Amino acid sequence: MMKAMPQDAYFTEMFAQLSAIGRLQDGGTNRMALTGEDIEQRQWFKERLEDAGAVVHVDPIGNIFGVFEWMRDASCVLIGSHLDSQEHGGIFDGAYGVVAALAVGRRINGLVSEGKLHPKHNLAVVSWTNEEGARFEPSIMGSRVYTGELSMEEALRSRDLQDTSMHDALLESGWAGSESAPSAVAYAEIHVEQGTQLIESRSNIGMVTGNWAAVKMDVSIEGEQSHTGATAMADRRDALFATALLICETRNLVEEYPEDALRSSATKLRTFPHSPNIVSSHCTIHIEVRSECLSTALEAAEKLQSRFANIERRSATTVTLLHREVRESMHYWNPGLAIAEESAVESGSAAMRMKTVSGHDSVALNAVMPTIMLFVPSEGGYAHSPKELTSGSDQQQGVRMLGAVTARLVTMSSFEEV
Amino acid sequence: MMKAMPQDAYFTEMFAQLSAIGRLQDGGTNRMALTGEDIEQRQWFKERLEDAGAVVHVDPIGNIFGVFEWMRDASCVLIGSHLDSQEHGGIFDGAYGVVAALAVGRRINGLVSEGKLHPKHNLAVVSWTNEEGARFEPSIMGSRVYTGELSMEEALRSRDLQDTSMHDALLESGWAGSESAPSAVAYAEIHVEQGTQLIESRSNIGMVTGNWAAVKMDVSIEGEQSHTGATAMADRRDALFATALLICETRNLVEEYPEDALRSSATKLRTFPHSPNIVSSHCTIHIEVRSECLSTALEAAEKLQSRFANIERRSATTVTLLHREVRESMHYWNPGLAIAEESAVESGSAAMRMKTVSGHDSVALNAVMPTIMLFVPSEGGYAHSPKELTSGSDQQQGVRMLGAVTARLVTMSSFEEV
Repeated sequence: MMKAMPQDAYFTEMFAQLSAIGRLQDGGTNRMALTGEDIEQRQWFKERLEDAGAVVHVDPIGNIFGVFEWMRDASCVLIGSHLDSQEHGGIFDGAYGVVAALAVGRRINGLVSEGKLHPKHNLAVVSWTNEEGARFEPSIMGSRVYTGELSMEEALRSRDLQDTSMHDALLESGWAGSESAPSAVAYAEIHVEQGTQLIESRSNIGMVTGNWAAVKMDVSIEGEQSHTGATAMADRRDALFATALLICETRNLVEEYPEDALRSSATKLRTFPHSPNIVSSHCTIHIEVRSECLSTALEAAEKLQSRFANIERRSATTVTLLHREVRESMHYWNPGLAIAEESAVESGSAAMRMKTVSGHDSVALNAVMPTIMLFVPSEGGYAHSPKELTSGSDQQQGVRMLGAVTARLVTMSSFEEV
Repeated sequence: MMKAMPQDAYFTEMFAQLSAIGRLQDGGTNRMALTGEDIEQRQWFKERLEDAGAVVHVDPIGNIFGVFEWMRDASCVLIGSHLDSQEHGGIFDGAYGVVAALAVGRRINGLVSEGKLHPKHNLAVVSWTNEEGARFEPSIMGSRVYTGELSMEEALRSRDLQDTSMHDALLESGWAGSESAPSAVAYAEIHVEQGTQLIESRSNIGMVTGNWAAVKMDVSIEGEQSHTGATAMADRRDALFATALLICETRNLVEEYPEDALRSSATKLRTFPHSPNIVSSHCTIHIEVRSECLSTALEAAEKLQSRFANIERRSATTVTLLHREVRESMHYWNPGLAIAEESAVESGSAAMRMKTVSGHDSVALNAVMPTIMLFVPSEGGYAHSPKELTSGSDQQQGVRMLGAVTARLVTMSSFEEV
């Protein structure tokens, strides 16, 4: 019966099944990478891929590929996103795109079987491991290991807050695959927008032209443990006070740039010790600055770093940059935008061009192959929040749009000649 | 052999035995209330009290009393401190005073047995439960339950970070006693100074004349979870940024008062969620302001609270005072200072008068009975730190001083007529 189900109903049913896994009382979800809930959804996804007629391959970092192999030894067009969520996230981020790709893969496989579509490439539906980075840093892990930007060794060394390594989590979950990933010629992904541009412009599809640059920093602040009462203020070396100064600097930096030229955040603060009566001796914090322009992001990060000395002086602490990662701003594949525009007309979508501020698996793929990134609207613009919401009709429109794009991609002879 | 051991050697041996429990590699200790290490030291302490000839009583909040009962139904003079430590604390805070009291109790019991001292009261050596408040808030718990300032119900309701209640921790540890605490007529405690006044003035005993006032506040900061990149700065309601503003206000408040008229601290910060890519929705923080003068501490707390609105406005969050506790500044028992001065002469101590900024069990006892509080020097003034250090000769001098004070107290007919 499932085989005969039309695409709209199939998508709705599949998204409802997936959304039930890890669901929280407030409507949010917790399916962090390689936790019990992620293992449950991975098993569910593997079975649905097989039901849809795909052959499943799992690579060593746990990326799951469902391959519709119409031609032996042909390269694939890849479509997908990620199933993992934030610890207290929404049900759309990543999961929507994976289920949309599943529905599209199943439908296109049907069209090919019926002789209604004549592919030049195979098709693979993918869920990338640990896009969120909520449990294991860095984020966008599985897709960056796939493209070679991140080494397998560095990924496996990552440790969560309980000190479990990515290596052990993969092995214990049973999702450290032994198969090689299929080689691909192009990638398409659809995702919730995480902003309100589409809603505000009454569009229902975003076509991503490029991504913002980001500089991500882990900073350590060392002071000295002392008594919150007995120790004179002049003798304190309060790591938490220093961290507070750094958080304020990070936020206020934005004011030194034109409106929305820079975004910044300070998160994942850890303090030690954790007593009401002890001045903190040690903190670590994660800081990000983002800009449409790489040089602005780099300059802002430099500015912030140059202010460490002032913070050290005011708090008698030592502020150290532990790690810095730069995400460059890149344009997406230009011919892909033309493909998306034609697909929007075909699927009846009201599409607009836009940039993505946040990173996605497509940012990694875009560095190495022709890549198309699509957005569906987010009601209220909520992201990384249980309040994430995309209306049912927008969800369905996105599936149709991804279907139109995918049909074009699998039937193109070459991606050079577009 | 232990029975015949002179007081100096006995104290050294006992303090070494106790210090081995929960010892950390960096020289610090972790013997938080009702943890495995606390249970181990409690058992050790009970056995040492019995060896010394005391009868042990444990009350429902787990305070341990070793009573030397020379006269049936007579009230006690109480001497002691607390065995529990901070999570990553020093070996002297509390523990020194308990072992000093044990050594003094054993010696005075010997003098009474030999007919060399004629007591008017019995003597009890006490270790109060959970003075630190490092695991269960509020601090100074056991002694405040003893004096009636804190209700047993409120104490038992307290929960640690793992959500274990004080009630369950007491039951599971086996240290929820069923005996009533002995009634007392006077209390004496000796403790490390936690500052450098004694070292700087080349004194070896501090005689505490009063305690600083403190206002302790638990504050909740509510924002909204969102994406660290995709969410525009103007739309963020960042609870951690608001908390950083509050930490800075707390620290800077000190500058509005004359030098050392006010001390402040912000500690025990908890943030949620804990992801590198999520703007925090919720934080809680513990804030203290302390002053020699109660009205100054109250005024400073009011000032801080009046600034919540500005922080809310700057961060689009809600800042709420969850709980406020006021510790009043009090003078210690005036005749006790005369007793301490005579005892200093007798024991050859170089004694000076001083105040205590931090709270102690004696602050609780001082509210209800004649109380004497003594300090021994802290090298470097370290407190709530593995670096805590009191020299061996200062340790011994403190034991002699406590012995002289205790001998006076147990032989006084009345505490009114001094």
